[in-house]
Amino acid sequence: MAVYTEVTAEDLYELLARYDIGNLTAFKGIAEGVENTNFYLGTDRGQFILTLYEKRVALDDLPFFLGLMEHLAQRGLTCPTPVHDRQGNVLQRLADKPTAIITFLPGYALRKPQPSHCYSLGKVLAELHESGLSFPLERKNALSVEGWTRLFAELGSAADALSPGMTANISRQLEDIANSWPQTLPRGIIHADLFPDNVFFLNNKVSGVIDFYFACNDLLSYDLAICLNAWCFELDHAFNVTKARALFQGYDTVRKLQAEEIAALPLLARGAALRFLLTRLYDWFNTPDTAFVKRKDPLEYWRKLTFHQDVRSAAAYGL
Amino acid sequence: MAVYTEVTAEDLYELLARYDIGNLTAFKGIAEGVENTNFYLGTDRGQFILTLYEKRVALDDLPFFLGLMEHLAQRGLTCPTPVHDRQGNVLQRLADKPTAIITFLPGYALRKPQPSHCYSLGKVLAELHESGLSFPLERKNALSVEGWTRLFAELGSAADALSPGMTANISRQLEDIANSWPQTLPRGIIHADLFPDNVFFLNNKVSGVIDFYFACNDLLSYDLAICLNAWCFELDHAFNVTKARALFQGYDTVRKLQAEEIAALPLLARGAALRFLLTRLYDWFNTPDTAFVKRKDPLEYWRKLTFHQDVRSAAAYGL
Repeated sequence: MAVYTEVTAEDLYELLARYDIGNLTAFKGIAEGVENTNFYLGTDRGQFILTLYEKRVALDDLPFFLGLMEHLAQRGLTCPTPVHDRQGNVLQRLADKPTAIITFLPGYALRKPQPSHCYSLGKVLAELHESGLSFPLERKNALSVEGWTRLFAELGSAADALSPGMTANISRQLEDIANSWPQTLPRGIIHADLFPDNVFFLNNKVSGVIDFYFACNDLLSYDLAICLNAWCFELDHAFNVTKARALFQGYDTVRKLQAEEIAALPLLARGAALRFLLTRLYDWFNTPDTAFVKRKDPLEYWRKLTFHQDVRSAAAYGL
Repeated sequence: MAVYTEVTAEDLYELLARYDIGNLTAFKGIAEGVENTNFYLGTDRGQFILTLYEKRVALDDLPFFLGLMEHLAQRGLTCPTPVHDRQGNVLQRLADKPTAIITFLPGYALRKPQPSHCYSLGKVLAELHESGLSFPLERKNALSVEGWTRLFAELGSAADALSPGMTANISRQLEDIANSWPQTLPRGIIHADLFPDNVFFLNNKVSGVIDFYFACNDLLSYDLAICLNAWCFELDHAFNVTKARALFQGYDTVRKLQAEEIAALPLLARGAALRFLLTRLYDWFNTPDTAFVKRKDPLEYWRKLTFHQDVRSAAAYGL
C-alpha cells in the first residue's frame, strides 16, 4: 500500500531500452499491493505495472510467481503477466531490487461485493484451481500449520495487550486446528490471498485476478475457505449466507467439490481465520501506527474464527 | 505522497454519473502530490486524476486554484484542468472531502534535470507568469515574510536539535531578509512550488506543469528564485551555473527581467531558501519518522541559504 522504494524516470530509461514496449509517457507510484512497490507505467504503446519486489518476497520464489501468472493467463484466466524483454527475460534489477514489468489489468476492486460478485469469484477461483493443476513448479505454503505455529511463538503474549486472554485462546485454537487439519483433500495451486482487493471487476464481471505473491501448493478447498472469510462477512461482522451460497455455486459450475471437502469446510474456515488473525497480529505489533499505514484489525479475524467454531456443518454456509 | 483518504469504486459510481466522461475502467491510489490524496481514474473515454483535498488545502482557496488551472490552460500552458460535470460544476464532495476530477497529463518528472531541461523550465515559467497576469482572482502568499515569521515562532528552538545554534542563525537571517525584502518588483501569479516533481517532460520538452496548490500573487522573480534553488544545485550540493544560465535564458525568451529584478536575485534566492528551510523544519518535527513517509532534509536548504548569502551579485548565477 506504499511506495517503499523511490524510482525515477531516469532509472527507467536503461531498463525500458531492453524492452520492445514503446517510449515512456507516464510514470507514477501507485498504492497497490501490500508487499511490493508498484508503479503505473504508460508508454506510447500501452499501459503496464512496474513492480519492485521488496524484502518480504523471497527472490527464489519469483520464478514460481511470475511463471504461474503466465501459465494461468495462457489458460484463459485474466491476470497480469510478466512482459519479456528482447532477450526473453522477465526478471530485472532496478534500484537494487528484483523488478518485473507486468501487464496492466483493466477493472477495479470492490469494497462491498454483492452475491452476484461472489458467484463470479467462485467461478474464477475454480478456474484458477483447474488451470493450476498443470503448472509444473511447486511452492510450499509458508503460512499453513507450521507457519502458524512459528508466528504464534514469535508473538509471545503480545496479543493479550489487544484483548486479555487472547494468547491462551489462540493457543487452544491452534492446537485444536493443527491436530485435526485435513491431510488427504485434493491439492493444487491456490491463490491464498484472494481478498476483494485482489479481484478486479468490470461491468459486474470479474475482469482479472492480481497479486499472486502468496500463491502456493495447498488444499484447494482451503482457498475457498479463505474467500468465504474475506467475501461473505458484512462490515458489521454478520455472516451473509446468500453470498456464501453464491460463492459455492459459482465454484461448482467449474469444479465439483468432493463430499470430504464440504465436510471439512468449517475446519478449513477456522484455519483460514487463524492464518489471517496471526499475520494481522504480527503486523499490528510490528508496524508503526501512523496515519499513512492502515493496520488491519486482527480482532475481525478472531470473530470469524469463533463464528466457524460454532458451525456444525457446511450447511451453515448454505451448502 | 500518500493516500490519506480511502475511496472505493462504489463511492465513485454516484460521482461519475454526474459527468459525461465514460464508464470506470481503472481506479488506483497514486503517490503524487504532498498535500492531497490522488487517484488514477481510467474510463473507456480517457484518463483522469481524482483529487481529494485534505485539510492542508483551504476550501476557500479551491476556486482560485481550479480557476487558475483553467485560465492557464486556455492560454496554452499545458497543465491539468478540472473537468466540469453536466451541471458545469468542478468542485464535488467525496468521502467527506472536497473533490475534483482533473485531466491526466502525459509525461513524467525528472530527478536529475539537465541544462536543456532548465532552459525549457525557464520558458514555461515565464509563460505561466505572462498568462497569469490576466487572471482575475487573487491569493495572498501565506508563505512569504509574514508566514516565515509565524513558522519560525512556532518552531521555537526545535531546530537546535538538528544542528546546534541553528535557531539563532535562522533568526538573524530572517531579520536580515525581512528588513530588506523587495516591495516594488513586478508582481503577478506565481506557482511558488515549481520543483522537478511538478514539471513533466516528454521527449525532453516540458509536457506540463502540475500541483498549483501553493500558487498565489507575489513577486514574479521570487518564483524564479525558487526554481533556481530547486533545479540548479546538484545532489552533492554544488551550484551548477550552467543550469542557472539555461534557466534564465529560457525565461528571457518569453519575459525580459528588469534590472531591479536581476539585482534582487541573491536576496530573493535567500528568501526562497528560507521559506523551504522553515517548512521542512516544521515537517521534520511534525511528521512521524516511518519508512512510509520520506521527510525532506531541512539542512539542504540551510546550505542553499548560506550559499546565496555569499553571492555578491546575480553574475554568480551566470547572468
